[in-house]
Amino acid sequence: METRDPRELIEATRDGTSLTETALRDFVAGVTDGRVTDGQAAAWLMAVCCRGLSDEAAAWLTSAMAASGEQLDLSALPHTADKHSTGGVGDKTTLVACPIAAAAGCTVAKMSGRGLGHTGGTIDKLESIPGLRTDLSTDGFLRQAREVGLVVAGQTADLAPADKRLYALRNETGTTESVPLIAASVMSKKLAAGAGAIVLDVKWGSGALVAPREEALQLARLMVHIGEANGRRVAALLSPMDRPLGRAVGNLLEVREAVETLRGSGPPDLRALSLELAARMIELSGVARSPEEADGRALEALESGRALAKLLAMVRAQGGDASLLEDPARMPCATLVEPLLCTAGGWVTAVDARRVAEAVELLGGARLSREVGPDPLVGIVLERTVGEECRAGEPLAWLHANDPARLETARECLGRAITAGGEMPAKGADPGEWVAGA
Amino acid sequence: METRDPRELIEATRDGTSLTETALRDFVAGVTDGRVTDGQAAAWLMAVCCRGLSDEAAAWLTSAMAASGEQLDLSALPHTADKHSTGGVGDKTTLVACPIAAAAGCTVAKMSGRGLGHTGGTIDKLESIPGLRTDLSTDGFLRQAREVGLVVAGQTADLAPADKRLYALRNETGTTESVPLIAASVMSKKLAAGAGAIVLDVKWGSGALVAPREEALQLARLMVHIGEANGRRVAALLSPMDRPLGRAVGNLLEVREAVETLRGSGPPDLRALSLELAARMIELSGVARSPEEADGRALEALESGRALAKLLAMVRAQGGDASLLEDPARMPCATLVEPLLCTAGGWVTAVDARRVAEAVELLGGARLSREVGPDPLVGIVLERTVGEECRAGEPLAWLHANDPARLETARECLGRAITAGGEMPAKGADPGEWVAGA
Repeated sequence: METRDPRELIEATRDGTSLTETALRDFVAGVTDGRVTDGQAAAWLMAVCCRGLSDEAAAWLTSAMAASGEQLDLSALPHTADKHSTGGVGDKTTLVACPIAAAAGCTVAKMSGRGLGHTGGTIDKLESIPGLRTDLSTDGFLRQAREVGLVVAGQTADLAPADKRLYALRNETGTTESVPLIAASVMSKKLAAGAGAIVLDVKWGSGALVAPREEALQLARLMVHIGEANGRRVAALLSPMDRPLGRAVGNLLEVREAVETLRGSGPPDLRALSLELAARMIELSGVARSPEEADGRALEALESGRALAKLLAMVRAQGGDASLLEDPARMPCATLVEPLLCTAGGWVTAVDARRVAEAVELLGGARLSREVGPDPLVGIVLERTVGEECRAGEPLAWLHANDPARLETARECLGRAITAGGEMPAKGADPGEWVAGA
Repeated sequence: METRDPRELIEATRDGTSLTETALRDFVAGVTDGRVTDGQAAAWLMAVCCRGLSDEAAAWLTSAMAASGEQLDLSALPHTADKHSTGGVGDKTTLVACPIAAAAGCTVAKMSGRGLGHTGGTIDKLESIPGLRTDLSTDGFLRQAREVGLVVAGQTADLAPADKRLYALRNETGTTESVPLIAASVMSKKLAAGAGAIVLDVKWGSGALVAPREEALQLARLMVHIGEANGRRVAALLSPMDRPLGRAVGNLLEVREAVETLRGSGPPDLRALSLELAARMIELSGVARSPEEADGRALEALESGRALAKLLAMVRAQGGDASLLEDPARMPCATLVEPLLCTAGGWVTAVDARRVAEAVELLGGARLSREVGPDPLVGIVLERTVGEECRAGEPLAWLHANDPARLETARECLGRAITAGGEMPAKGADPGEWVAGA
């Protein structure tokens, strides 16, 4: 590869002049091999934050980042489909939608992340299942994809190493909040992971990483553009994240709720969103020939119990104790389970997702660092959510804690998260809307 | 000092929100003690490049950078005056103006830099005098200021260490071209060096580091504001740098021309500019009570020969062979001195300063790195400059070289630098104009 002075790209980005594909590719190669210094990479990230990137440049950047390490070849597998959420509170849709899609005939070989900021991560949730391993080798990952049709693992060390370095620098340098940088980070990993169909769930609202709806819409459009420019079939759902999704927040509590949903009895918002995402995975991967057929196949996979069986098969293949999921009453539980009581009766009009996440964090349920994971057992289960009535003295929510002091500070925080006692609110949660590419 | 997360300042700068003095001071302290990483410092520098800084914030930043290391106390010395040029081609005014000011009664204790980019540096010029030392201790520097009234040395290791780190990062990360960052870098060193009066020569035009006149004007205004906000008396001259200043470019050749000017026979543009700058040093430091008196004292110091005597005293005090300056014919000379001949007769209408600098660089006369200095003997002396007539076959300029191959490539480059053969140009060089603070 030709080597250029990294300052050329930095200065062109700073000045908002158009960038070339080769210049971006060379810069990303320098980020990967260390030729680009931390200072240069950080200066460039800030230039992107301030000046933006064209959609074309974002697609080239993403392609170069995907090519910076191992790129999985899933071409021998049928109907490959991947799914990604930009992160929310109580978002356990991967554990529902992916088994549904796999049960309907998709091959779902998905690499997931850990918790980030106030949002949970699928890998932390899966690891709350005793025995379950997420650090699969590439060979093991591909074998399970072939044999089970469903695998969810942590990213292999060599997946998009340029993104790993840039991601760490973004957190360090106050350059996280940039639509093209977020899009390139997400999509580089999705491209490298090799699926032909990619379904994105882009959250907006107080509990999302990107709160303003307009910005989330830009992000969704750009990610669709990037995926399509790189030869993938992509759909993005713009979905609200102001209240938690479902009723459970906390790692093992969320696994339990996902299993309940696969049994047919989970919260309606989680069920509706999971079916919607799974149907698009089924459609875009070519299992179904029409949106309507995809909707039907998703529903059938869920209601027949085949989706639950697929999740159990995956858990078993990854060494997890599937028997706990078959009999949730046997699941381990936190030592203290206490209610938050309703003081003034009336309707619940708001449940602030970010404050709920803070309460779970106070309980010890959030990842503190790469090394220090969450307590898998703690968390919160809402007894009442938006649009439901609660009488004074009745429980609004249950706190699952392992420490009495943490329980009390979390209860106080949770009290501020839930607004109860008002008039009946106008309507329930909106599952979101599908977005076209940029 | 309170410690904050450096990301707070980075994000506030990125978002263009107003910054506080304490936040800037804490960030600069973190740059100095290493708490702020390279990535964070570089991201912040780029945020300043893209979003700017208020004049108030620039003054706080500069003050914090000045306070990051040793701050010289010159308060016991009379009429302290400092001078700084933003850099040009053939700019040897320090070697003329500072002796004039010192001879007129100022104490000139000046720290200078080495060559940067295509512009020369006073320290490289002084070191071309055999024996002369510029790496003085703080004690030695202050003693010479007291005893001789004139000292020009390199920066001590602990002068504005925050600037040292940021300066290196700016060069590395494409964040050099920012008015507030340039102003803070220059003025932090001037504030730390302790003089009560500071005279700035801000260059614009093709041979300047900041080429556009409007940007140089902003820089000049901001530097005056920063100095005054920090309790100094400051004047800034905005002067053109499209052709070289004087006729000589190259380290020892420039020393020789400075000495000739102090003898009364140098080029008129160098003489006029040096007198102008020296007069403002004399005025602002309180030696003279009016601009007219200052002009008169500067002229008297030059014409009486006392300015030359002051330069010789300084050279002697710093270990240099002053006898060479007393008898320029004894100065060492490059082995090859050859002309660039005029092909078409006519008037010289342009001498491109940057191309002349390139030709000198081709001869080996530029600093290549911190470690590899220039060949002190090589360079170019213009036989004809803008507004002078030249006949075909006559020399336009003389190349001083120590290598025949370098001589030929430099001659070719110099040929493109000089435009000769046109009509008589309208007017000569403009000494510039004085600028008020922001």
